[in-house]
Parts: sequence; C-alpha cells; structure tokens
Amino acid sequence: MTKPYVRLDRDHAAVLLVDHQAGLLSLVRDIDPDKFKNNVLALADAAKYFNLPTILTTSFETGPNGPLVPELKALFPDAPYIARPGQINAWDNEDFVKAVKATGKKQLIIAGVVTEVCVAFPALSALEEGYEVFVITDASGTFNAMTRDAAWERMVAAGAQLMTWFGAACELHRDWRRDIEGLGALFSNHIPDYRNLITAYDTLTTK
Amino acid sequence: MTKPYVRLDRDHAAVLLVDHQAGLLSLVRDIDPDKFKNNVLALADAAKYFNLPTILTTSFETGPNGPLVPELKALFPDAPYIARPGQINAWDNEDFVKAVKATGKKQLIIAGVVTEVCVAFPALSALEEGYEVFVITDASGTFNAMTRDAAWERMVAAGAQLMTWFGAACELHRDWRRDIEGLGALFSNHIPDYRNLITAYDTLTTK
Amino acid sequence: MTKPYVRLDRDHAAVLLVDHQAGLLSLVRDIDPDKFKNNVLALADAAKYFNLPTILTTSFETGPNGPLVPELKALFPDAPYIARPGQINAWDNEDFVKAVKATGKKQLIIAGVVTEVCVAFPALSALEEGYEVFVITDASGTFNAMTRDAAWERMVAAGAQLMTWFGAACELHRDWRRDIEGLGALFSNHIPDYRNLITAYDTLTTK
Amino acid sequence: MTKPYVRLDRDHAAVLLVDHQAGLLSLVRDIDPDKFKNNVLALADAAKYFNLPTILTTSFETGPNGPLVPELKALFPDAPYIARPGQINAWDNEDFVKAVKATGKKQLIIAGVVTEVCVAFPALSALEEGYEVFVITDASGTFNAMTRDAAWERMVAAGAQLMTWFGAACELHRDWRRDIEGLGALFSNHIPDYRNLITAYDTLTTK
Amino acid sequence: MTKPYVRLDRDHAAVLLVDHQAGLLSLVRDIDPDKFKNNVLALADAAKYFNLPTILTTSFETGPNGPLVPELKALFPDAPYIARPGQINAWDNEDFVKAVKATGKKQLIIAGVVTEVCVAFPALSALEEGYEVFVITDASGTFNAMTRDAAWERMVAAGAQLMTWFGAACELHRDWRRDIEGLGALFSNHIPDYRNLITAYDTLTTK
Amino acid sequence: MTKPYVRLDRDHAAVLLVDHQAGLLSLVRDIDPDKFKNNVLALADAAKYFNLPTILTTSFETGPNGPLVPELKALFPDAPYIARPGQINAWDNEDFVKAVKATGKKQLIIAGVVTEVCVAFPALSALEEGYEVFVITDASGTFNAMTRDAAWERMVAAGAQLMTWFGAACELHRDWRRDIEGLGALFSNHIPDYRNLITAYDTLTTK
Amino acid sequence: MTKPYVRLDRDHAAVLLVDHQAGLLSLVRDIDPDKFKNNVLALADAAKYFNLPTILTTSFETGPNGPLVPELKALFPDAPYIARPGQINAWDNEDFVKAVKATGKKQLIIAGVVTEVCVAFPALSALEEGYEVFVITDASGTFNAMTRDAAWERMVAAGAQLMTWFGAACELHRDWRRDIEGLGALFSNHIPDYRNLITAYDTLTTK
Amino acid sequence: MTKPYVRLDRDHAAVLLVDHQAGLLSLVRDIDPDKFKNNVLALADAAKYFNLPTILTTSFETGPNGPLVPELKALFPDAPYIARPGQINAWDNEDFVKAVKATGKKQLIIAGVVTEVCVAFPALSALEEGYEVFVITDASGTFNAMTRDAAWERMVAAGAQLMTWFGAACELHRDWRRDIEGLGALFSNHIPDYRNLITAYDTLTTK
Repeated sequence: MTKPYVRLDRDHAAVLLVDHQAGLLSLVRDIDPDKFKNNVLALADAAKYFNLPTILTTSFETGPNGPLVPELKALFPDAPYIARPGQINAWDNEDFVKAVKATGKKQLIIAGVVTEVCVAFPALSALEEGYEVFVITDASGTFNAMTRDAAWERMVAAGAQLMTWFGAACELHRDWRRDIEGLGALFSNHIPDYRNLITAYDTLTTK
Repeated sequence: MTKPYVRLDRDHAAVLLVDHQAGLLSLVRDIDPDKFKNNVLALADAAKYFNLPTILTTSFETGPNGPLVPELKALFPDAPYIARPGQINAWDNEDFVKAVKATGKKQLIIAGVVTEVCVAFPALSALEEGYEVFVITDASGTFNAMTRDAAWERMVAAGAQLMTWFGAACELHRDWRRDIEGLGALFSNHIPDYRNLITAYDTLTTK
Repeated sequence: MTKPYVRLDRDHAAVLLVDHQAGLLSLVRDIDPDKFKNNVLALADAAKYFNLPTILTTSFETGPNGPLVPELKALFPDAPYIARPGQINAWDNEDFVKAVKATGKKQLIIAGVVTEVCVAFPALSALEEGYEVFVITDASGTFNAMTRDAAWERMVAAGAQLMTWFGAACELHRDWRRDIEGLGALFSNHIPDYRNLITAYDTLTTK
Repeated sequence: MTKPYVRLDRDHAAVLLVDHQAGLLSLVRDIDPDKFKNNVLALADAAKYFNLPTILTTSFETGPNGPLVPELKALFPDAPYIARPGQINAWDNEDFVKAVKATGKKQLIIAGVVTEVCVAFPALSALEEGYEVFVITDASGTFNAMTRDAAWERMVAAGAQLMTWFGAACELHRDWRRDIEGLGALFSNHIPDYRNLITAYDTLTTK
Repeated sequence: MTKPYVRLDRDHAAVLLVDHQAGLLSLVRDIDPDKFKNNVLALADAAKYFNLPTILTTSFETGPNGPLVPELKALFPDAPYIARPGQINAWDNEDFVKAVKATGKKQLIIAGVVTEVCVAFPALSALEEGYEVFVITDASGTFNAMTRDAAWERMVAAGAQLMTWFGAACELHRDWRRDIEGLGALFSNHIPDYRNLITAYDTLTTK
Repeated sequence: MTKPYVRLDRDHAAVLLVDHQAGLLSLVRDIDPDKFKNNVLALADAAKYFNLPTILTTSFETGPNGPLVPELKALFPDAPYIARPGQINAWDNEDFVKAVKATGKKQLIIAGVVTEVCVAFPALSALEEGYEVFVITDASGTFNAMTRDAAWERMVAAGAQLMTWFGAACELHRDWRRDIEGLGALFSNHIPDYRNLITAYDTLTTK
Repeated sequence: MTKPYVRLDRDHAAVLLVDHQAGLLSLVRDIDPDKFKNNVLALADAAKYFNLPTILTTSFETGPNGPLVPELKALFPDAPYIARPGQINAWDNEDFVKAVKATGKKQLIIAGVVTEVCVAFPALSALEEGYEVFVITDASGTFNAMTRDAAWERMVAAGAQLMTWFGAACELHRDWRRDIEGLGALFSNHIPDYRNLITAYDTLTTK
Repeated sequence: MTKPYVRLDRDHAAVLLVDHQAGLLSLVRDIDPDKFKNNVLALADAAKYFNLPTILTTSFETGPNGPLVPELKALFPDAPYIARPGQINAWDNEDFVKAVKATGKKQLIIAGVVTEVCVAFPALSALEEGYEVFVITDASGTFNAMTRDAAWERMVAAGAQLMTWFGAACELHRDWRRDIEGLGALFSNHIPDYRNLITAYDTLTTK
C-alpha cells in the first residue's frame, strides 16, 4: 500500500502569517522568547528567500492585541495585509480568503499566535476547502505546552502536517546546488550552531 | 480531498461538568492547582457567557469524593444537577443522558476530574451515540502527565477533539464585534497576561 | 458517524503480566521506582479483585534478567506461568498463546517490562489475531520517555488502547454500588491521596 | 477486525544511516550527546550483528556539515557510500535509491541527523514507493523536542513505525536461543544497566 | 554554638512592593502567570490582614513599563506610593528610603519584578543599612529560573532570608487561636487545595 | 583548617515528626505522593529500628488539616503525642519542647509538612537553642520546588544539615556488621531497586 | 550587623570575555543556543554602551576550539586580545593579567565558555588577588545544568557574585534619566518582551 | 579581602573511587546511565593520565551490592583495593585511611555511589582531618536530584569543593602545551562534541 508524499513545493506554496502582534506575543509561553522571535523571523526570511506569496493579517490591532511586529511589516511591504475588524478565524474574513485564493497556490504554510486559535482555525478551514496545510509549529506560539499539544492533535487529526521553519526551508530548497550561499546565509542567520560550523570551516579553509 | 471542519457552534453546544468535587480535586497533579482552579472557573464563566446549556454531575458526593466545588453550584443554580448514586461513567446514569438529550444539542463540551475516567468514559459513550465531542483539556485534571497523555490518545482515536477553554471560547464567539466588552472581560478575568495588556492599553488611551 | 466504544468488560477480559523480573526492572527509568512498584501491584490487585484470568510469563529468568518479582508469584499461585525459554515476543511461545486462548476472553489487558518489546510485541500480535488490546501504560516501564512515546505511537496506530490501572479498574467496576468497600480498599491501598481522603472522611463521620 | 502486524524481519530489512556527520551532530540537542553517540553506534553494531545490508550517505561532507563520523565508516567499509552532491532528501539521489533497491529488501530501517529532514524526507519518499519504514528514533537527532515531536507526527500519519535500536534488535532476533552470547554482548556494550546485570550474574554464578 | 533565629514579627515588619507593573509583568517567566498573580495578591492580602505598613513603588510608570497593577493600588489606597522618576534601585530614591524609615520597622518584607534588579538591589541596600530582609520569592518574578537562582545566591550570600507568602503569613500569625477565621479566609482565597479541605470539612461537619 | 564533622549518632538523636496529617498532605506537590508516602514511612521505620526517641505532633487536627496519618500513630503508640491547640511553630508549644528536652538528646532529626513552616520554624528554633538539626528533606513536603528551595536556603544558612531518610539510616548504622538483616529489611521494604538486588541475589545464591 | 553592598560601578568595572570560540560553543548545552547567542551579544553591547574596558582572550584558537566568534572581534576592534598559547586558566597568562591590571579597575565582570573552567578558574584567581568578581551567568555556558550548578557553588563559596547581563546593565546604569534612549535600545535589541512593550507603547503614544 | 584559591594540583592530589559496584549502580537515577558510565570512566582515565595515586574501595561486594565494575579494576590493577567488611563510611575503615595517608597527598578527589553516603561521609571525615576535598559530582550518583542537592548543600557547608571530571582534568593539566595529544585524546574519548570538533578539524587540516 503506497502513500502519496505531500511535499512542499516552492511553485505551489504560499505563506500565511497570522496575528504576530506585539501584545499577543506576551501570551506566548510554550517557547522561549529569544527562540520564538528568531523562529518567526527565520520563517519570514525563508518566505522571502523562496519568493513565496505571503499574506499578513492581524486581529484588532488597534486594541490591546497591539500592532504587527514591525520587522514583518518591513520585510513584506507589498504583501496583502488584512487587518481583520473582528473575525477571530482569519478564514472568516472574505478579504483574507480572497488574498489566499489570489495566490493561486494549493499549499498553505501557516504560522501565528496563538496556535490553537489563530493558527488552528484557519488551518482547519483551509483543509475543509481542500488545501494542503503545513503548520510551522516553531513559529507559532501559545500559553503552554498542554495547549499546544491539544491543538496539534486536533490539526493532525484533520490532516494538517506539522513542520518547522528549518524543515520547510529544506523541503522547499531540495538541492543545495540551486544556491549554496543563499541557503547557507539563511541558516547562518538563524541557527547559531550552524553559524559556528560555518565560521570554523571558513577559518580553516581560507587560511 | 476535503475534510469537514467540525466547528463549535454556540447554537449547537452544551457543556458537561463532571465531578469537579472538593475531594477528587486533591488527586489532580498534572496541572498546578492555581491554574487548574482558574481554568475550571473560566470554562464555567464561558458557558455562562455563551448561554450554553450546562449540566452538572457528581460521583458519590456524600463520601470521600466530597461535594461539588461551591463556585460551580453558585454559577449554575438552575442547571440540571445529577448526583450519581454509583455509576462511574456519567453516561451510565439515565438521568444524565436524559438531561443531555433534553438540551437538544449535538455538540458536547466536556471537562471533569479525573480525565481518563470521568471525562473519557462519557466522551467515548457520547461519541458512540453520534455526538460531536470537544474535551476541554485544561479544565480536566488527573494524577500525572502520563495518565493524561494515555487518556488523550484513547479519546482522539475515538474521534474526540481536544481543546482548551480559551480556544473553545474563541471558536464560539467567532467575531469580536458581537461583543467586545463581554469577551474582553472573560479574558481579563482569567488570563493575567491579557489583563495586563488591557490595563496598559486603557492607561495609555484614556489619558 | 457513530463509533463503537470498545469498553473493558469484567466478563470478557484477561490480564497478561509480562516479564516483571527483578533484573529487568533495573532498566525501567521512565517511571520512578516507588511509583512503578505501586502501579504494578495495583494492577495485580485489581486483576485479583475482579477475578480476571491472569497469565504470568518471564523471559530467561535463570539468567541476568532475574526472577519474577515474588509479590506477583505470591498473588497468583495458580495462574498459568510460562517461563519462556527464549522467545522475546511472548506471543511466539505456543504455551503462552494457548494459555491466552484457554481463558476464552477477547479483551487482553497487557502490562510488562520493557514497554516497546515485552508489551508492544505481544500487543501487536494479539491485535493481529483480532483481540481487543488494552495496554496498562503505568504498569509498563522502559528506558526513558522517548522510547515509551515511540512505543505508544506504534501500538496506537495498530489499534491498541492506552489505559492506566486506575482507569481500567474504574471501567471494569462501572458502578460503586456493586461493592463500595472493595473498590475503596483497592484505591486506599494504592493511591495515597485517596487514602487521605478516606482517612479524613472517616475521622469526621465516625466521631 | 484484525490488523496485520508489520514486523521487522532480518531477511527483509536494510539499514539506512543518513548524515551522521561531525558538523551536523553539533545541531542535535533533543538527546544528550553521550546517549546519542551510544545509540548510533548501537544501531550500527546491531546492523552488523544481524548482517543487514547497510547504506551510508552524507550531505555536502566537504563543507561545514563535516565528514561522516569515522566509527561508522570503519564499521561498514564495504557498504554503499553515497556522498550526495546536493540533494537534501537522500531519496532524490538516484545512486542512493539504486543502492536501496539493490538490497532487494522491502523493510527500511532509517536513522539520521536531523530527524525532520534527513530522516523524515527519505522516510516519506520510501513510504510513497511502498516500503515498510521503521524509524529508529533514538539514533536520530534534531534541534529540540518540539521539532522532533512534529516530525514524528508527520511520519506516523504517513505510516512510518517508530522504534528504538533496542526494540529493533529484539524484533530482529526474536529468540534468545538463536545466539545468547551475541545478543548479550550487543546489549552489554550499549546498555550500562544490562551490563551491570550481567556482571553481577556472572560473579555469582562463576564462583 | 547557638544561632539567633531571625524571625518575622508583626510588630517589626513592613512590606515593600516594588514595580509590579502591567508591562514589566510580561517579562516574568519563571512562574506561571496564574500562580504569580495569585501569589502577589496573596502577599498583598496578608500585608493587609496583618496591618503591616506597606510601601508601593514603580519605575517609569508612564513609559513601556506600564502602570502598577490596579488591584494593588486599590488594596492600599493610603500607602506611600513612590513613582520613581528614574532610579532603578528603589533605595536610591530618597522618598522611598524616607518612607521606609518612617515605618519605624527593622524587618523588611520585599517582593517585586524583576527579582534580580527591583528586588535584589533594594534588598542589598537595606541589608547594608542593617535591616533584616525577607524576600518573598514567590511574589517576585523574573525572566527564567537561571536568573532567579543567581539572584537568590547573591541575596543569600549578603544575608537575606528567602521565604514565600505562605511561610511569611504563618510566621507572622504564630498561633491559629489569634484568629482562626481570618487566617483561614486568607488561605482559602489563595490556596485552592486548602479551600477544598475547608469545603469538604464544612460539608461534613455542618450536616 | 579542620572542620568538625557533625555526624548523626544513634545515642544522641531524637526524631520529630511534625504535622503529617491527612488534610495537609494534599498540599504536598514537590514530591510525588507514592514516593512521599514511602519516604515518610521509611523514616518512621528507621526511627523504630534504631530505637530513637520519637515525638509526634499535629496542628489543629480536628479542623481541615485532618488527623495524623494512622500508620504513624500505629508505629509509635507510646510516643509523646502533642496535638497543638494553635501554635504553628511546634517549638512555641511548651509541651513539645518539654518532650524534646525529656529525650536528653542533642541531635534532632526533623521532618514534616509543610517544609517551610512546620519543619523550618522548629528547626530554626532548635538551632537557636544549640541543638544539632538534621532535616530529612525527602520526608518533608510542600507546595512546589521553588518553595522548598527557598526553605532549604534559609535553614542551611542557619546551620541545619540536609539529609534524606536513607542517608540518615546509613549514618546511624555505621557498620553493616551490626545487623545485616535488619538494615537489609529496612532497605528492601522502602527501596524497590534495592529489593530487586536482594531478590536476584537470593535467587542465585540459594539455588 | 551591617553588610557592605558590593555594587557594580561603571567607573570601577572591566569586562573579561573568555573563550567564546566557534568550536567551544558547540559544547554549551545548559542554555539554548538562540538564547545564549543573544546573551553573549547583549553583554558585549552593554560593555560597549557603558564604555567598560573589555579584554578578549581565546584558548588555542588555531585548533579544534576554533576562532573567536566574529561578532565579538568586530565589536571590540581595539580591545586587548590575548590568544593564549596553552594556559587553560587565563589568569595563568601574564599578558592577560597585565591587561587586566592595566585597566586599573577593581571590579571584574567575567563571562566565558565553559563555565566551570574558563570562567571559574580566572574568577577564583582574581578573587585571590582581591578583585571583586561578578560572573555573568547567562553569558557563560557549559555541558549541562549539573556542571553549572557545581561551578556556581564553588565560585559563590569563594566570594564571587552571580549576575546576569540584564542585572549588570541595570546596576551599572542606576538611573534611567542618565540616558533613556540608550538603555531602552539595549533592552529592545536583546529582550523580545521588552521590545514588544516598546512597540505597543510607541504605537499608542505616537498616534 | 583576598581569598586563597584552593586549586587542584597534580603533585598533591589523590583519587578515591568509592563503591562503584554493579548492584549499587542500579540505584543511580539522578544521571542517565550512558552519561554516568562515561563520566566514571572519564574520571578514571584522567586519574590514570595524571598518574594520581588512586584508591579503590567497595562495600559488601559479596552481597547484593555486587562487584566493583570490572573496568575500574582493570584500569588500576595495582591500586590499593579495600573491600570493606561492613563500614559504610569508608573513612571508618582503618585500611582505607592508611591507604589515603600513604599517598602523602593533601588533596582528595572523591567520587562514588551513592552521593549522600559513600561520597559525603568520607568527604566530611576527610575535611575534619584537614584535607582539601574535591567532589567529582558527575562521577557520583544517587537516587534522585533532590537527594543529590541535599548532599551537595551538606558538603559545601563543610568546605568541600564541587567539581566535574572535566573541570578537574583542566585544573590538573593547567597548560595544553604540557601534552596536547594526551589531553586531546582524553577529551575525544569522553566528550562526543569535542570528538566531533577534532574530527572536523583534522579532516580540514590534513587535506
């Protein structure tokens, strides 16, 4: 019995960044803040690097949830930006769904805050409409590990695939020969251990 | 291949609070007591806020298991209250099942103590009868994380969906515009980080 | 879509205790020894209490794996006892399978050391032959949590249900009214928190 | 409803060791280095002991990822060794797939660094082609437990079975009587607790 | 060799609550927010209950650090309230030190956010001036456990005593007979397990 | 610079068991209940075995704190038993201090619930009066690890020595030749791993 | 009894960064790499910000230990840089000690890799010569928490004070009014939660 | 105020390996077995490498405690070997103390099983007699972390210094130039991460 490998493909994937807002980020306690900030920016850099259509959305950004973190806005100045007036599930917002459909992609890479709401709800909605959904777990955060685990179980049961920014980047890139320096820079900027490997390697090979 | 999104709906959901009794609570060690107490009351407040039919039940409350925690009784003075004379699985009690059926709802939100018994047994029974079951994991407690994990696996395999009180409240509310103050108050009362966001926001915007 | 609730039934269940041997127990590090010893004896006491046919088996007990812990032998002096000459999977031993079949039961409650081998192998074999398998996770132990988690995933994917001794006892008993004192004694002997509840209750009600 | 037990068989299994390279190993933080080194060598020793066809592969070994750890090279001097020029998923490398097919085996035992990429990608590809895939979780490592958990979920959903080197060795051996000393030596060399059991046993029985 | 027991005394103690501000609280990650909020309010309630002179102070409350949490302000409407214009160590602020000296107490109970700065700095300064310092560890929070541990070592080496709100309340009360109901209410309001004991006790004894 | 080794001596030591009451035990969450129950009974058995004068005391045992656990009462039927009418620090109770002094011992082995109050307060008082104090940490329990750590720091700074029941038993026994069977039985009854060693040893040496 | 508060003073402090080398960093496993990298750079930025004389040193940087991480070299192009030819304890290197003495400072802020060697050894040597030593614990890393804890105990016993980069920065700055923007930028760059507070604050106050 | 740095010196140090016996090792649960075995052998290799006089001792090795692990016996065939007939504290055994004195060293490096007994007792005795005591924490093991922490506190208060095998080796070696290959081999054999650094370095520099 064979099983199709649902594989991320740079020609078919779009990225949805949901509610990475300055206020909401204070709710995230299942990942350390230094690491979480790095993961979110790494996913954003990867989206940029692979030229994936990217959509930004926020919930109530004029209230306590706070503004989108400025780094994301700066990275994607021309991306569709849907400041939802009230819908908690981004998929309930017509403009958001329109923006998703306008990408023409069938694979959706989703990350956001908080995992069981801002990520899980649109993920479940997108699966219902036939999209292939890849949740970037380490660029999504929530109150605690128990909440995250429950959200993962719900999404997996519905058919979502759980990945991390690094795994997604590797699956999108497929072959180092496409661009060694570009991928190396992405890793060097966001994986301290990898940066150290490169530093040591460069020192020894450029002597 | 599309998948239906089994989504909580305020028009179709009822809440079952099972065996949150003063004695049994001393058995709960997979969640810290301060947090657990807050989660249970948050779920209760959410049930109240969304006007969901709510059913209370206890096991042997005149013995060592102890009485229902008074806060729940006080919140739902008119709710069906089934003090089971002996049945461990609440679903084995005819009055309980009758009360569930009398709500006319097909979605059951279940929480209780202890997870693998008082929650899992009626959850499995309800799934067998065709109900959609949503387990509120963080308002359910048990002896330790290993026991909880095993109970989760069993319930997920049978089709239950794992949620938390916050995720459930968000899925029930759907749109902040329905009532910003009400939902905000619910969150402020039960999520200290959210309360702080509101405090800071209010201070700056009402100056 | 309804789902049948595969429910433990005292009339249809047998218990398999696999390789709880003095030497092998030193390999168990995913559960604290005090707790693990208590869990194993609690399961054994429950098997006794519910009069479930129980089968004991050991692997190479004359070598470094060591003898069966004496408490189990003492509790079940007349139980089938299969000292396997070499088969690692107990189900590969004809005498063991014969003993299982001789019970005439279709539900198998399995616990043992170590989880991913002595429990998982016969569990998978029994599932293959159509038995309903209930793994008592907290009376089964292994090297570390990672190993246990992997074993759980494999067994769940094959259809095993994960339980604990307490959950199993509750599902077998169904109704406190069948015998309050007996079940109470089982819990009092193996759940310190429950014993304290009973102590406090008895003190206040017998004054 | 019976379920076939997909069981490792020494006549049908091959081993794939993917990217255990000196540089990449510094990325592994979900398992302690002493334990991880031991697990990888234990799996290699088991592959050797059971005479399973084994394939070595590396990613970019002349760059920062570094060379294959010398112990593996020394253990399998004649094994196919595919130094991939760029493909991240080993299955995208024709020579690797040819080597796998040349073994004539339908069961693939896979371990590597890092789990969600170097293990998961070829595992998913192999499942797609109808292989039975057994992931050796404790000889595979990655950045942290969260990443590992997500990778496990993805592989399990696709049909992979999660095992450990010890479980795999036990399932391959099946019966101690085939060779007590050989298997005992494998365990003694890689399980300190088991070694101690043997030491104590030998001391007492050879007096 | 005898050692004087430096014991909290309700006649000699004052309470300093330092920088429990809505913004700064989002930095606290060594204690869960539900628990931390409860601990801070419990300490405040205890200070009130024992009529201890209490001093509130904040750092830069008009900036990102945010306002004092409203509950504290409400509990101590007449307490000295020193909104420091810039001094990080509250003891560097003359008004604060004056307020401390005005209490005429030699024992200082200190809690605040974050532990290694807002608590440790004034604690070290107060010790230097000969005060007996009691740090309420569980009503003080900081970035992570490592930071907290380092702060504790520094303060202990300088002679501070580490306590918790519950221990301090017990040492201040000394004898239940002074006021059973008052202390019982304090515990019932802030220790869920204790509340449950009282609930069960009251139910049984008032029947 | 030499340092005197303050060593437990069976001729100079007494044991104080403070407030191991059925209700208070539900507050203990820094040690697992199975383990804690075992530790308390092990300490009691050791006190018995070494014939150390032992004093029992309780706080408010007719209220929610509940009765002394019956096992301790049964083990020491003739020991001084001080049911304190209200004093939180047992040392504030004259009868308790009299009972301590009546033992004529200068070394006090103390354990109780909760650590930072019922143990720490009399420990600090006893140190003040010149006693050598040995806290049995693993037979003392409290709300959480943070609270315990703070209590340890306070007691260590005052000169208390931290031990466990096993270490204390070893220091009191000094030489196995005094009584191999007696000490062996104590260990076998309370250390599952040690029991297994004895089981395996006996099996091999009595063949 | 008063105790002098040994307080960091920007006029009397120098910074020693010991062996933050690309190879050695792969040994650090008691702090997550993302966090550790951030901490080291935060300490360096703080040293720069406060104009503290800073000394860089490395151990065997031409061998496997690898080169100093380039960021540190770039930040302090004119700092004394002692590439030690072999001395493990930097204080055994005359040039290093000369560089320290040349700063004319009596307070030494030390961080390095690994904690129990590269930090502890020069810390103990400096204490012996009468320096006040402040260990920046979170910019120092080692193999695991147990090793770190042992190193901390040794250094504390010898009189070192344990701090973190944030605590040190606060103690050096003393008063926000000296430079709000500068300190705010330091925090914003290295504390994601603080950055979010600033983002939210700026958004609301600049509207 | 200067403080003397009590520094390990290869000319003044002896090593005491206490009760690393096959049976007792099954009691060790505060360190993972793979890591603990490695640490003990690393310490032994270091003792050998630095030619430090080494003393072996066992407790009751003909009983359940089991024989000394064979590797230690093999490494030190000519070392004093004191099989204690009954004394729990090795220092109570005259032959052991004689052997220690015969080394003529004033610095004692101690490791053993279990920490709070076999290590702490002779450590405290040796401190009393004026020796400088260095406990190798990671080559000493016991039941759990709580027990270890209590033992550490007791030993530190008495003046013992806590180290690890790696820190001790570095302090003994002092300067890489004494013997680069020898120390490098010691590290390569016992620190996987260091071995990887060397592998990568050698590969790049010998091309």
